[in-house]
Amino acid sequence: MCQLLGMNCNVPTDICFSFAGFRARGGLTDHHRDGWGIAFFEGKGVRIFVDPSPSADSPVAELVKHYPIRSLNVIAHIRKATQGEVRLENTHPFQRELWGRYWIFAHNGNLNGFAPRLSGRFLPVGTTDSELAFCHILDHLAQRFPQGTQDIAELHGALREMALEIGAQGEFNFLLSDGDKLFAHSSSRLCYIVRKAPFALAHLADEDLTVDFNELTTPLDRVAIIATTPLTDNERWTQIAPGNLFAFHDGEAVAMSTTQTVAQDYPRRNAADA
Amino acid sequence: MCQLLGMNCNVPTDICFSFAGFRARGGLTDHHRDGWGIAFFEGKGVRIFVDPSPSADSPVAELVKHYPIRSLNVIAHIRKATQGEVRLENTHPFQRELWGRYWIFAHNGNLNGFAPRLSGRFLPVGTTDSELAFCHILDHLAQRFPQGTQDIAELHGALREMALEIGAQGEFNFLLSDGDKLFAHSSSRLCYIVRKAPFALAHLADEDLTVDFNELTTPLDRVAIIATTPLTDNERWTQIAPGNLFAFHDGEAVAMSTTQTVAQDYPRRNAADA
Repeated sequence: MCQLLGMNCNVPTDICFSFAGFRARGGLTDHHRDGWGIAFFEGKGVRIFVDPSPSADSPVAELVKHYPIRSLNVIAHIRKATQGEVRLENTHPFQRELWGRYWIFAHNGNLNGFAPRLSGRFLPVGTTDSELAFCHILDHLAQRFPQGTQDIAELHGALREMALEIGAQGEFNFLLSDGDKLFAHSSSRLCYIVRKAPFALAHLADEDLTVDFNELTTPLDRVAIIATTPLTDNERWTQIAPGNLFAFHDGEAVAMSTTQTVAQDYPRRNAADA
Repeated sequence: MCQLLGMNCNVPTDICFSFAGFRARGGLTDHHRDGWGIAFFEGKGVRIFVDPSPSADSPVAELVKHYPIRSLNVIAHIRKATQGEVRLENTHPFQRELWGRYWIFAHNGNLNGFAPRLSGRFLPVGTTDSELAFCHILDHLAQRFPQGTQDIAELHGALREMALEIGAQGEFNFLLSDGDKLFAHSSSRLCYIVRKAPFALAHLADEDLTVDFNELTTPLDRVAIIATTPLTDNERWTQIAPGNLFAFHDGEAVAMSTTQTVAQDYPRRNAADA
């Protein structure tokens, strides 16, 4: 199984702190050694760093850890290969253009016997079920909204149908963003936290690193972090119940599925950490 | 005006030496300070490093200079903005997927009043004439070869028509690759060199750096380097005459336009350098 990390904010924010803990899972504190990648939106542009080598050893990851790229939307992925060889073209996140915007996608899970009919407009370059699902989703959006749409509720509705259809084939946790909004679907494991004033100390679960967000933020900042499992051990993360699709915009959840609204809080490790 | 750099090889090769000289042109030995980017194909996958800051100062360029990514096809670009703000989405090279392969494009020049009719399948994300031309080219290829094609002669013929059509709007030097072959079109300035056995010393024109390719190669290696102006001052570079489109595969020119076949050699600086 892979690990997902997403960030959606109302002001450009660097992800250095969360990435430090996330990256350790790629071969150091966890066994996801089959490549990694991270995409940063900056305006409508996007930078993707991908590396088929483990993130814990990667010189590219070292750069990302220390180079504070400020972004409103970030999607990162550490891979434990289930389908598709360990090759660059199978390394998440994946990128395509639709409606004059870049779309970025990363998937955690495994789809069995998944063989959607594609129009040919979006075709996978690699051999993963994940990229195939991404192409299928974009194909569907392009057909459903021939003039394009930026409406979050419309997109949420269409993506929720796709998530249910594809999710019926197996495990399908995913993150998807067009640089403006970020969609997060939980099929089994995905959680999030919204950091806003009053900010506090946060301590990584995977490295002994603490940051005081009071020193790095202004009172109006709002940052949503989405991850497979909580990245910190002294904050309250909310689990996205399986079967739910959340849309994040400006650092908060603005649309969520209504079929299952039970969100389960992860307990704080102990009160003294808070 | 911008600077282009391309590499096409028969064995995966790192571009560290050429990139060292090329990078210096982004703010150090030349005035192209409006961002830079480089794309490395590895198999069908591609890694793009783009940075809207000058390449001479960029920490990402520092990484690329020292991290030997081995690739069969590389396209790099240093930008001096003519159309479109200095923003990440206007930074070359650009990427799209067609026929299940990534295509990478970079342009040097300026197109005036260029407003092609696009189908909507490929739309620019930024505001450059360059990305618009790229979308127009892919649109045309998709329509002309609905089943796709990998045939170099077919692609060369179609691209030559596009290069002439678009080139009528202004200056249109470009590099285009799908990871297998690399197309290079000269509208005003573009030159190349094929390095093969017997290999020799090469000395950069923009930095005092010499490399002995004998120590880094095997006798069967063949590497074509394409650049706006020669990167070394002791080797024989061949100018691609304006109006010509070359196709490179396995480190050699395999198709070229026949309307103008006059290739003009750059003179060696002096015999002692050879």
